[in-house]
Amino acid sequence: MLTKTQNKYIRSLTQQKYRKEHNVFIAEGDKIAREWLTSSVAIQMIVATEDWVDAHARLIGKHPEASLHTVKEHDLEQVSALQTPNKVLLVVERPPVETTLPLSEWCIALDGIQDPGNMGTIIRIADWFGINHIVCSPDCVDVYSPKVVQASMGGHLRIKLYETELEPFIDKVRIPVLAAVLGGSNVYEQTPLPAAVLLIGNESKGIRDVLIQKASNRVTIPKLGGAESLNAGVSAGILCALLKRS
Amino acid sequence: MLTKTQNKYIRSLTQQKYRKEHNVFIAEGDKIAREWLTSSVAIQMIVATEDWVDAHARLIGKHPEASLHTVKEHDLEQVSALQTPNKVLLVVERPPVETTLPLSEWCIALDGIQDPGNMGTIIRIADWFGINHIVCSPDCVDVYSPKVVQASMGGHLRIKLYETELEPFIDKVRIPVLAAVLGGSNVYEQTPLPAAVLLIGNESKGIRDVLIQKASNRVTIPKLGGAESLNAGVSAGILCALLKRS
Repeated sequence: MLTKTQNKYIRSLTQQKYRKEHNVFIAEGDKIAREWLTSSVAIQMIVATEDWVDAHARLIGKHPEASLHTVKEHDLEQVSALQTPNKVLLVVERPPVETTLPLSEWCIALDGIQDPGNMGTIIRIADWFGINHIVCSPDCVDVYSPKVVQASMGGHLRIKLYETELEPFIDKVRIPVLAAVLGGSNVYEQTPLPAAVLLIGNESKGIRDVLIQKASNRVTIPKLGGAESLNAGVSAGILCALLKRS
Repeated sequence: MLTKTQNKYIRSLTQQKYRKEHNVFIAEGDKIAREWLTSSVAIQMIVATEDWVDAHARLIGKHPEASLHTVKEHDLEQVSALQTPNKVLLVVERPPVETTLPLSEWCIALDGIQDPGNMGTIIRIADWFGINHIVCSPDCVDVYSPKVVQASMGGHLRIKLYETELEPFIDKVRIPVLAAVLGGSNVYEQTPLPAAVLLIGNESKGIRDVLIQKASNRVTIPKLGGAESLNAGVSAGILCALLKRS
């Protein structure tokens, strides 16, 4: 059961303001909930249907700190941020913010990524390619918005996420900084790098000029067809595949 | 102005049933609308705000077949399928279905892709890499759903889209068929191909076994980190970048 207040509380967490105020976020869906419950991250609430609770008693038992709410699917629909609500929703405590910036390790730096689907996809890409750090400019979408958590498929648990101004960050790093742009050098001619910062820009405006100026190299995925551009998440994936291969 | 009937008609087109019945689809947003209006495809309706109509008189003039409706932003919101409605929405006539399957040219074959964002992204990827054909199994999401049209960024105008059972199609093709799977051979060791079918599977179930058996090669993007999988659109992008480079 969920009280009216709890229902309202969970629904408020689709807004960044309330997520920050309460220092929590929402993780939804069977697969993602299992990933978070398997981790040692503190869970505040577990809201799930009876069959899900029954099937995952051991996993739930690992989190005595969480309040457990067994609900009907209809109740879950009311608090879900998903179009097709799933059998389980968690309210998770936000891990402490990473403060020591990575200055000499592989990292993706995001300049104003706005789409939560792209942000989640990029976290998942980093997680696949073993890139342990993502540095976000302050104007990026909140990395704990429900759609980002959904799209990263548990990537949040393994990737360190930072929020900082990118200019001073890039001034400090001691490794090559590659800016993904249109009209740069052919990325196929770039040999894989043992460490680098891959800079990805905003979906419509790209990377800000001041940052492009600071990059050691501007790389482009050569175009063979008629499209004007590639999606930011797909570009990031292709560039990681070409630059971070073992 | 839009009459009540027109308003209802446009809103009905978010459903595949009505899109098929009327043989039309919706294209929304400034950039995408301009791409479609620049083409020779027949437009049924142009619904736009006054400032947009004023700024694009010449483009609109190219489509005397279309009925023009100048509306307030509020009216556009009512018929829009987007969360953030734009200044223009088109009702476009569906191009004739492609029937002669491509048997010896580069092609992406999709086995049950469900997410419209992924479908649109894959059309955009094909459009970037100059892959002119996408063959969809009948259980794929409708390639003319509003979100697909949105995500393809005009790719529909350049890529030929087919719908057919994949088994007999693969039996007929005369080029290598590469199945994107987990646990296949390292795709970095595969040299780029002058022509191939790249087979991409459903987001959760992957490619059906019967199709994997028919593939000439099973390829995998090697994993270096902790993620369980990559998003279908991103995988398609990386594989195209590695296999279809010039």
